[in-house]
Amino acid sequence: MADVIDSEVFRAFTTHATLVVLKMLLMAPLTAYFRITRKAFSNAEDVSSHAKSPEDKKKFIRSDPDVERVRRCHQNDLENIIPFIIIGLLYSLTGPDLSTALLHFRVFTVSRLCHTVAYVGALPQPSRGLSWMVGMLATVSMIYRTLSTVLLL
Amino acid sequence: MADVIDSEVFRAFTTHATLVVLKMLLMAPLTAYFRITRKAFSNAEDVSSHAKSPEDKKKFIRSDPDVERVRRCHQNDLENIIPFIIIGLLYSLTGPDLSTALLHFRVFTVSRLCHTVAYVGALPQPSRGLSWMVGMLATVSMIYRTLSTVLLL
Amino acid sequence: MADVIDSEVFRAFTTHATLVVLKMLLMAPLTAYFRITRKAFSNAEDVSSHAKSPEDKKKFIRSDPDVERVRRCHQNDLENIIPFIIIGLLYSLTGPDLSTALLHFRVFTVSRLCHTVAYVGALPQPSRGLSWMVGMLATVSMIYRTLSTVLLL
Repeated sequence: MADVIDSEVFRAFTTHATLVVLKMLLMAPLTAYFRITRKAFSNAEDVSSHAKSPEDKKKFIRSDPDVERVRRCHQNDLENIIPFIIIGLLYSLTGPDLSTALLHFRVFTVSRLCHTVAYVGALPQPSRGLSWMVGMLATVSMIYRTLSTVLLL
Repeated sequence: MADVIDSEVFRAFTTHATLVVLKMLLMAPLTAYFRITRKAFSNAEDVSSHAKSPEDKKKFIRSDPDVERVRRCHQNDLENIIPFIIIGLLYSLTGPDLSTALLHFRVFTVSRLCHTVAYVGALPQPSRGLSWMVGMLATVSMIYRTLSTVLLL
Repeated sequence: MADVIDSEVFRAFTTHATLVVLKMLLMAPLTAYFRITRKAFSNAEDVSSHAKSPEDKKKFIRSDPDVERVRRCHQNDLENIIPFIIIGLLYSLTGPDLSTALLHFRVFTVSRLCHTVAYVGALPQPSRGLSWMVGMLATVSMIYRTLSTVLLL
């Protein structure tokens, strides 16, 4: 086990995987922040501490464009970051060069930071589309290398 | 490979990871149960066996508060349990003490069981918020230990 | 590390895990295809290149049944494929027979391909329900084997 973690490729993978997971986890407090400032909740039991009258309670169970935007960004993270981590783990075990592996990991991490800024900040396209595409290409390139090394159907 | 699985920390991780994934998978039959009892479906092809008339078919394609509550709980599981498993796997490979590792895993597993009960049962806050927070802290603590052991950007 | 990847069970797992992740990733361009052909977008900044007038911009921010169907299929993939990969990885480390492991992996991969065809094509039930169930049974069978081998609470 010590051998696995001592490999520099695996250390690099662990670092980048942990950072992008941390970024993804931070979407939850960001959603909570927008829910509280926009007064837009999903659950009746969440409203009580923010509502002063029974009418407020009903009014605060609603969807809000800013909350929905952060939630779509979080969902996009789930759809892209988790596949990156699964593929990155398997790719790391195929014994790639450290420099090639680091290139893939760094490109992906930076692309997802840009994606979040572009999404939450509602920057004009194609900023969000391009950052999504760059991250996807890094993952697909690792899929190609992994499949061509270990294929056993 | 036998070495990895023989490590007690890795056996503990495997046990807790498997249990929380099993809990998450059970949200799907729970959603199906509420969809059928509340007669609230998303897909036209799912309605046929429950509808007796063509009007029923249209009426049953709708959203229901109980179904949506279970789905939000399932979504929260995806957003929290999968990061725990990714981080827990990497953390297990950094060679932590068995007792420290077990503490993290047990706290997380129990916190997610409480979270599900609090969410599906619509218990008053802060029961759901606190159980979510405890699980998050366990994950963040493992992120800190993992990053401080292996950092290679 | 070379030992892990040299194991035939792990090579088989890596191949099937990579293939189902690739299938899941392809749901994103499929969603984009339906969004563009149905002119149904979620974000104001995505509309500009498809809208010719300011009225179009408002009209195109809407939900569409075909887009929602693909998104539900993508969500179902997240809820089922990621647990399969987590469990499959841990199961592979418990040292199962190659033939038993391959059976589990092949059944799961084929079941998810059928599930996607049944969902996106809106085939009559129980085609989608059955293919979902078969994939779930493969995952639960691996959970049983993994827990009975390594249990350490």
